[in-house]
Amino acid sequence: MTMIRCLDHGFVELVDAMGNDQTIVRSARVSYGNDLEMQSIKADRALIRYLMRHRHTTPLECVVLVFHIKMPIFVARQMVRHRMSSINEISARYTELPEEFYVPEPEHICYQATDNKQGRSGVMEHGEQEASMLEVEASTTFKLYQGRVKAGMAKELARINLPLSTYTRWYQKFDLHNLFHFLSLRLDKHAQYETRVYAEAMASFVKERVPLAWEAFEDFRLNAVTFSAAELRALARTFRVDSSGAAMEADNSTWPTDRERTEYLEKIAMIEKLAP
Amino acid sequence: MTMIRCLDHGFVELVDAMGNDQTIVRSARVSYGNDLEMQSIKADRALIRYLMRHRHTTPLECVVLVFHIKMPIFVARQMVRHRMSSINEISARYTELPEEFYVPEPEHICYQATDNKQGRSGVMEHGEQEASMLEVEASTTFKLYQGRVKAGMAKELARINLPLSTYTRWYQKFDLHNLFHFLSLRLDKHAQYETRVYAEAMASFVKERVPLAWEAFEDFRLNAVTFSAAELRALARTFRVDSSGAAMEADNSTWPTDRERTEYLEKIAMIEKLAP
Amino acid sequence: MTMIRCLDHGFVELVDAMGNDQTIVRSARVSYGNDLEMQSIKADRALIRYLMRHRHTTPLECVVLVFHIKMPIFVARQMVRHRMSSINEISARYTELPEEFYVPEPEHICYQATDNKQGRSGVMEHGEQEASMLEVEASTTFKLYQGRVKAGMAKELARINLPLSTYTRWYQKFDLHNLFHFLSLRLDKHAQYETRVYAEAMASFVKERVPLAWEAFEDFRLNAVTFSAAELRALARTFRVDSSGAAMEADNSTWPTDRERTEYLEKIAMIEKLAP
Amino acid sequence: MTMIRCLDHGFVELVDAMGNDQTIVRSARVSYGNDLEMQSIKADRALIRYLMRHRHTTPLECVVLVFHIKMPIFVARQMVRHRMSSINEISARYTELPEEFYVPEPEHICYQATDNKQGRSGVMEHGEQEASMLEVEASTTFKLYQGRVKAGMAKELARINLPLSTYTRWYQKFDLHNLFHFLSLRLDKHAQYETRVYAEAMASFVKERVPLAWEAFEDFRLNAVTFSAAELRALARTFRVDSSGAAMEADNSTWPTDRERTEYLEKIAMIEKLAP
Repeated sequence: MTMIRCLDHGFVELVDAMGNDQTIVRSARVSYGNDLEMQSIKADRALIRYLMRHRHTTPLECVVLVFHIKMPIFVARQMVRHRMSSINEISARYTELPEEFYVPEPEHICYQATDNKQGRSGVMEHGEQEASMLEVEASTTFKLYQGRVKAGMAKELARINLPLSTYTRWYQKFDLHNLFHFLSLRLDKHAQYETRVYAEAMASFVKERVPLAWEAFEDFRLNAVTFSAAELRALARTFRVDSSGAAMEADNSTWPTDRERTEYLEKIAMIEKLAP
Repeated sequence: MTMIRCLDHGFVELVDAMGNDQTIVRSARVSYGNDLEMQSIKADRALIRYLMRHRHTTPLECVVLVFHIKMPIFVARQMVRHRMSSINEISARYTELPEEFYVPEPEHICYQATDNKQGRSGVMEHGEQEASMLEVEASTTFKLYQGRVKAGMAKELARINLPLSTYTRWYQKFDLHNLFHFLSLRLDKHAQYETRVYAEAMASFVKERVPLAWEAFEDFRLNAVTFSAAELRALARTFRVDSSGAAMEADNSTWPTDRERTEYLEKIAMIEKLAP
Repeated sequence: MTMIRCLDHGFVELVDAMGNDQTIVRSARVSYGNDLEMQSIKADRALIRYLMRHRHTTPLECVVLVFHIKMPIFVARQMVRHRMSSINEISARYTELPEEFYVPEPEHICYQATDNKQGRSGVMEHGEQEASMLEVEASTTFKLYQGRVKAGMAKELARINLPLSTYTRWYQKFDLHNLFHFLSLRLDKHAQYETRVYAEAMASFVKERVPLAWEAFEDFRLNAVTFSAAELRALARTFRVDSSGAAMEADNSTWPTDRERTEYLEKIAMIEKLAP
Repeated sequence: MTMIRCLDHGFVELVDAMGNDQTIVRSARVSYGNDLEMQSIKADRALIRYLMRHRHTTPLECVVLVFHIKMPIFVARQMVRHRMSSINEISARYTELPEEFYVPEPEHICYQATDNKQGRSGVMEHGEQEASMLEVEASTTFKLYQGRVKAGMAKELARINLPLSTYTRWYQKFDLHNLFHFLSLRLDKHAQYETRVYAEAMASFVKERVPLAWEAFEDFRLNAVTFSAAELRALARTFRVDSSGAAMEADNSTWPTDRERTEYLEKIAMIEKLAP
């Protein structure tokens, strides 16, 4: 596996990598001066889980991955915000961009969520028609762009009306600590679907490269839940009073904000679903 | 409050600062385009708590604090590891260092902890004598140092035998996001006592400067507890079976490592103590 | 001066700042342990010039500026690449963007430079017409965008065909070291005109805040020239032809500080030694 | 070559590396969209020289080196200041440090320079005796340290009087851009000798890994000279005295690439225009 297709014209490709689970272990063991000893896989796994659990993240930095990514500009604009990475990108100042832009599949064209300012919910009626209109519009813009370049307009100006759906392409280098941070945000269900697709592709490469670190990342970050001071007090009341669904109780008056109470109840409901 | 004394000769002083709780709020609200509206303190507090809870940390970066710190070199060596800060330090290559070194109070001279490779436990017998020996040794070293400087030896060489307890002094600039990260590690009970003293001094300045952010930091970071995927499953079993201390149950066979089970039981015991 | 208009709808505003020339000086003097002494402006200026000349840049990091900037997305895409800054931006996932986009003035609509892959040269014929077409095109795109938002399409999707000329808005925090690096690249004649306009606005704020540091930045960075090893050899051949050590001449009165004169003479002497 | 001995007990070892000259070239060419084409070594060399000359440093970041380093603590204290690297170090809180400390060779024990606050000049008389006294002192300190550890004192306290000459050991990861920055400062004749020894060892590994980038680094950074605005005016006066445009001469055959010759002629022409 060296390239994973994403969306209609994009991809993620792993072009370079350094380090693995054993490198993490070596970097961590230098603290104790026993970095040069080989130990069992079991011991390595326990150590990596310990590091992840206690956020000792420096040893993760010795693993480095370089991805070659092609993605729409609006996705790129989200990815570039992860500063602790290194990027080299194609420049529309120097090069005429090929006519490639993202058109969502009809089943991804959704209504604005009402409960969530940033999300989507429910596939739109006439999605096919919306998709086709997006395509026509972007295509028209590209024709105008090509005309401007042909007429000799400076490329850095000719491109200013290109749509945010235009594909760009870059190399992006991450160390594993910062990549995990990126993934914990962009694999989240609140991340924009189009960006999540890229995060998932990158995650498959990580999983393959550092299986023990990935497992620990899933257990202690992706699938972990943090309880605030107030939530811990609520949980404590639960443990005492308890029996019969008492866990659901959370006295309204004791919460700093209503939203915190709601989020707590959601966590508890989620946990209860985990019961065998 | 502008200077807090630390250990026998050290201090932390806040010499410059930028931004406050309202700056955080403004930076966060620009996402919604309503950064220029004033809102109630209640709304500001709820927003700051939301940011901290969901690790939206960029708005914290617009608050900056500059500390003037005098501390033993072995403490400085821990603090410099927090890379996302900016440091200007006195140089023993250019300047003869004054005869100032740290001697612990007898009540802080402890035995090596047996359950914890990095900690202390139990005050040593003859602590006064140990302290006095440390003092004599460092003092002798300083006399030799001063002699070398006087004899004209290059300062950068004359200083090589100075003890790690020698005081150094620097300016260190942090943004609030990175300062919170620093504090979450160095206020912890596993941090070395001498470093924790400095973290506590810095924390008092933060508390005064950004009271709402500090409160949220305490509730969602310092006093929060994260449950791993395995712990959540254990918790779920608890909720179902329960009554009568069942929360303590945690089937041995279902834990990836023994240590994870022990840590879970500690978390549950801690939570049970919170019950009113 | 608190806001500078840029392009047709943009601006740069200084919303927060920390530190000044004296802060730089204090941070630098701590190396010698004399950071708490006040010295003359003349001494401060000489020190700041020395720091800039020898790239001792850490003391510059204690000066911090926060800008509120409104700019076209294609400009923002260049500015975000300067990673050592902190950004909070309006989000088109949460908020419907106002109908504001950049249309270049006809006199800025130029041909692609032929000698330079990234530049412009020569105003295009029919510039007015090109400008008007760019405007119509962007305006049409905005109408379609507004229709999609009105029809209930998720904002994060409705915006994907918005042009790169759409205005965005953010807060961006820089320390002076990284800001000088940004300015040295973006004030350059090879920077895109539209980005340079923003760099110039930011530069005016810097000039006002830290006049001594700005002067040194102009003399040792903006208006300085670096000669490579090969160039120095060429220069050396030149000097040989020259008569009578004239290269050694450097009128005392024209040098900002004595030390700069001495260093120049050293450079010339070094160059003369290169002569075959 | 995988390990280079440094000072009396130290070393630098290259334990991991990613990327080479071709990786730099690929990362740079993506700007033009032709990163997937193979080109001649000559073209690669010219491009790398161009990048270094114009400080287009991002492509250098895709080359990463990890060093295993053993060095005295006072050297480590200088190296850790290069923040854009990642470090995992042996901890004297967890581990008893072996009795290894740096004693300078008599020929390196020098007087404080009088013309330079930070340097050395002239070997001290009785250097052997000074070295032997440094050794005795450090050795005595180590005996006391070992006694404290044996008596059960917490390691984090027992170590506080250890000398700055004590050897520590760590893994340090650099990308090539930040490594060049480190080297440009620490290979300098003003760097402390003991640190320079380590910089030189690291430089040999770089030279071997990325020969083209190293050559460019030497020509455009290490052996280059920057002239300030004032110096350029002085140079201009010099040229005036000179006869007959000799400054324009620049023998074609001596330039590594044609473009470098052109740029030199432009610099000289620019300088000549400064003449009053």
